[in-house]
Amino acid sequence: MKMITGKNYIGKDASARGSKILKAYNPADNSVFPEEFVAATSEEVDQAVAKAHGAFNAYKTLSYEKRAQFLEAIADEIMNLGDALLERASGESGLPTGRFQGERGRTCNQLKMFAGVLRDGSWLDINIDTAIPDRQPIPKVDLRKMQIPIGPVAVFGASNFPLAFSTAGGDTASALAAGNPVIVKGHEAHLGTNDMVTQAVLRAVEKCGMPDGVFSMVNGGIETGQQLVIHPKVKAVGFTGSLRGGRAIFDLANQRPEPIPVYAEMGSTNPSFLLPEKLESDPEGLATTFANSVALGVGQFCTSPGLLIGIKSSALDQFIETLSSALAEKDSVTMLNSKIAKSYYEHRGIAIEQTGVQVLGDVNNPGENKGKPLTAKVDGQPFLKNTQLHEEIFGPFTMVVACENMSEMLAIANALHGQLTGTLVATASDIESNPELVNALGNKVGRLLFNGVPTGVEVCHSMQHGGPYPASTDQRTTSVGTAAISRFVRPISYQSWPDALLPDALKNSNPLGLWRVVNGELTKSKIE
Amino acid sequence: MKMITGKNYIGKDASARGSKILKAYNPADNSVFPEEFVAATSEEVDQAVAKAHGAFNAYKTLSYEKRAQFLEAIADEIMNLGDALLERASGESGLPTGRFQGERGRTCNQLKMFAGVLRDGSWLDINIDTAIPDRQPIPKVDLRKMQIPIGPVAVFGASNFPLAFSTAGGDTASALAAGNPVIVKGHEAHLGTNDMVTQAVLRAVEKCGMPDGVFSMVNGGIETGQQLVIHPKVKAVGFTGSLRGGRAIFDLANQRPEPIPVYAEMGSTNPSFLLPEKLESDPEGLATTFANSVALGVGQFCTSPGLLIGIKSSALDQFIETLSSALAEKDSVTMLNSKIAKSYYEHRGIAIEQTGVQVLGDVNNPGENKGKPLTAKVDGQPFLKNTQLHEEIFGPFTMVVACENMSEMLAIANALHGQLTGTLVATASDIESNPELVNALGNKVGRLLFNGVPTGVEVCHSMQHGGPYPASTDQRTTSVGTAAISRFVRPISYQSWPDALLPDALKNSNPLGLWRVVNGELTKSKIE
Repeated sequence: MKMITGKNYIGKDASARGSKILKAYNPADNSVFPEEFVAATSEEVDQAVAKAHGAFNAYKTLSYEKRAQFLEAIADEIMNLGDALLERASGESGLPTGRFQGERGRTCNQLKMFAGVLRDGSWLDINIDTAIPDRQPIPKVDLRKMQIPIGPVAVFGASNFPLAFSTAGGDTASALAAGNPVIVKGHEAHLGTNDMVTQAVLRAVEKCGMPDGVFSMVNGGIETGQQLVIHPKVKAVGFTGSLRGGRAIFDLANQRPEPIPVYAEMGSTNPSFLLPEKLESDPEGLATTFANSVALGVGQFCTSPGLLIGIKSSALDQFIETLSSALAEKDSVTMLNSKIAKSYYEHRGIAIEQTGVQVLGDVNNPGENKGKPLTAKVDGQPFLKNTQLHEEIFGPFTMVVACENMSEMLAIANALHGQLTGTLVATASDIESNPELVNALGNKVGRLLFNGVPTGVEVCHSMQHGGPYPASTDQRTTSVGTAAISRFVRPISYQSWPDALLPDALKNSNPLGLWRVVNGELTKSKIE
Repeated sequence: MKMITGKNYIGKDASARGSKILKAYNPADNSVFPEEFVAATSEEVDQAVAKAHGAFNAYKTLSYEKRAQFLEAIADEIMNLGDALLERASGESGLPTGRFQGERGRTCNQLKMFAGVLRDGSWLDINIDTAIPDRQPIPKVDLRKMQIPIGPVAVFGASNFPLAFSTAGGDTASALAAGNPVIVKGHEAHLGTNDMVTQAVLRAVEKCGMPDGVFSMVNGGIETGQQLVIHPKVKAVGFTGSLRGGRAIFDLANQRPEPIPVYAEMGSTNPSFLLPEKLESDPEGLATTFANSVALGVGQFCTSPGLLIGIKSSALDQFIETLSSALAEKDSVTMLNSKIAKSYYEHRGIAIEQTGVQVLGDVNNPGENKGKPLTAKVDGQPFLKNTQLHEEIFGPFTMVVACENMSEMLAIANALHGQLTGTLVATASDIESNPELVNALGNKVGRLLFNGVPTGVEVCHSMQHGGPYPASTDQRTTSVGTAAISRFVRPISYQSWPDALLPDALKNSNPLGLWRVVNGELTKSKIE
């Protein structure tokens, strides 16, 4: 069997009836991989959705334990791909294989984490109010609420995490955990990686006897994606990528006769506010820490710190000097693909040409898709007046905003868009003296850091990876951590059902041993 | 002090700078109430939003206990309006004062219920993962997640519940409970009722020392509503009403530069499936029960049963005969307003003119805004082919669909739009023999009844009042019950904060005594 087939997968069936060929590239040297990837025809996309729809009732009624085993089997099959997967992912993205060792671990841990979520059951959010037949003036009926899956989910992966936010990444894992079939639109920037992972998922489907159609993958471009988003039988979309791409999908989904939720995580500038006492204490150490965060992964993280806001002072001058020289010493490193490298220099170029912006380093593009770190500075007023400077620049660039005083800093916190993260580089006394700034930044972000850097997103219960628009299209949800499952479920109330006919999760005897709210009290007890 | 002022309220300030006058009508005789209600100018709307925005940080940082007391004070002040409120609401809606006795109780209970929610704290959905500084390969940071309010909320009341789904109804109560200022767009069909309740809310604002701007009310028409929906400082919308109105608001909100969530509850046909064994057992009793549900409140409930689907049989014939004669015996009763009465006859008229529809009763319009109950029947195939017949008709009309067999019934369940409710009129054995129908209907509804009628919506933890589109614009949420608060919050994660600077809900000592998930375990314990 060939490791990479170049085909689409309509459920278990490999299919390549189209004539449009896609090719995979290595960004390090723009070389082309040998395989031919066949873009799906619109009939093939239709068939994938039809199979997903057909598999829905069978898949959603499986026990949570069986779904958990399926997720674990996917993780096993991804490990079974061995080093070949790491090498291919590295070849297609320019990121080192060591990075993919970590990212593969994260991907498999996510799948296993959602298996744990399924066994734990707290995501079902069970609420039971038992009947009171003799209540006056009217009897109270028996009502039992739980979360159920919503139907086929379309997943668009991200180029910057070819494993953890792609084919079998967080969106797929959480949608499958919730009980929904998934159709992945293969990312054009890692076609081979996607192909390999798709086959791993399908081996798990086979091994676990899952209904055919629970997972499909189609290759293609924008039109293929659009067809998925507007398909009446697709019930939600997961997306990680650019604001432009995410917003286009969001708009399309909302214009459907039946609108559907789009969970687009679109990144942000991740502002860090350098408060005076803390900045004063160690300007050089802080600058070094931020330089490392800016350059990490060639700045290709949605949590890369793109704005550093301080108050004019000799400490800020020292911070800026150390930051710019630390970034100047960083190597230029291959970016994910030629499109991203081009976009980095374009958007950075626009930013540094704005009025009042002073570049602090070498602006030359070394070519060969390499991303060179850089910083620049601008005063508070020109920054406030020019919203162009508030936009994310994807890559290793950060802008220092030098404010006159704290009230200008507060004005900036209030003027910013929504963000995934906001960081207060502060002492406790900085925080206590500036409650308005803390409030203002808290209103804009999904994750609020006290010191540290925003890069590094822990996968756990308490992570919020999402934030007010344009950080994401749905600030009520997260795309990382256990809570991500709640994006793909909805509540249903069963009214007056006989115990024997209720789903197990709602039965009096609590056979699954779940935490449930019964008549207002959280309990694992049976209902007598 | 005049009971009704006719003015807008920009926070605490009465304001009437506009020149457009609105009048209140009594639908029973089309008589006009004496007061003049002044539509808000666009400047007044702007000021209301600006005040709401200005009050946000002060309001959101109040203790939950203070917010709870505020909600209770609103309930008290509504009671203090006395019988005058019931009489005015009855005069403006045609509904009897006895109905408003009940609806006022429900309104006040909702406010008190959300006070309880605030004290209980489970809506905060707290998740804490403590740091592991020596974890390999990288340390684990301390992360603590909770729900926080989102900002000013615009509320559009419903004509069919002038108290419980309007000025201080469920949307307002849940948005205020969550910590958000509210701007109500006064409903044009109960201007006086809205005016009285607005003043009651503002007395509670005064009494509890709430920040000015936490509640505002503006009168006006569609343009006033649109201005609220597109205002950059409005962060969510609550709406109960027609599909056309709700969709227009939804579309407008999604086209904003920063889209915001719209929680529009737009009603449905609430299909009831009459399964053979159960129908056979008591066709006449069931028909009488459904006739009463159809005629209840002149059919002006979003859960009114508009579709009754059975399989051709002598039992179904008997059911239809009893239903039509029971409905024929019902009085014609004044509907909420002339627009609704007109719309009822128009939409009913369109439905009964469709191919294959057979009217079973008197189609005359008695005039004077009176709604006359009626039923009609149609076979399964013409129903399936004609989606016009799948639309809601607001008023006391229900359509019986006579299917050839169970597979036609299943096809209908699969063909229907999303619904607030679906009812299986069934024996246990009917359910056990038809798992596909149960699954199909479950995929379409927010509340799934085993027998009974869909009218009657219990306000409790386990209620789901919402469903797949077009029942509501966000099937993940409910507009009734404690869970309604989750519409107006979003999660935030605090990373690496010193204990003393965290919100009380997240502090190690758990000073509020809340249930929290700490390192994956649900507990009320302190963190050592």
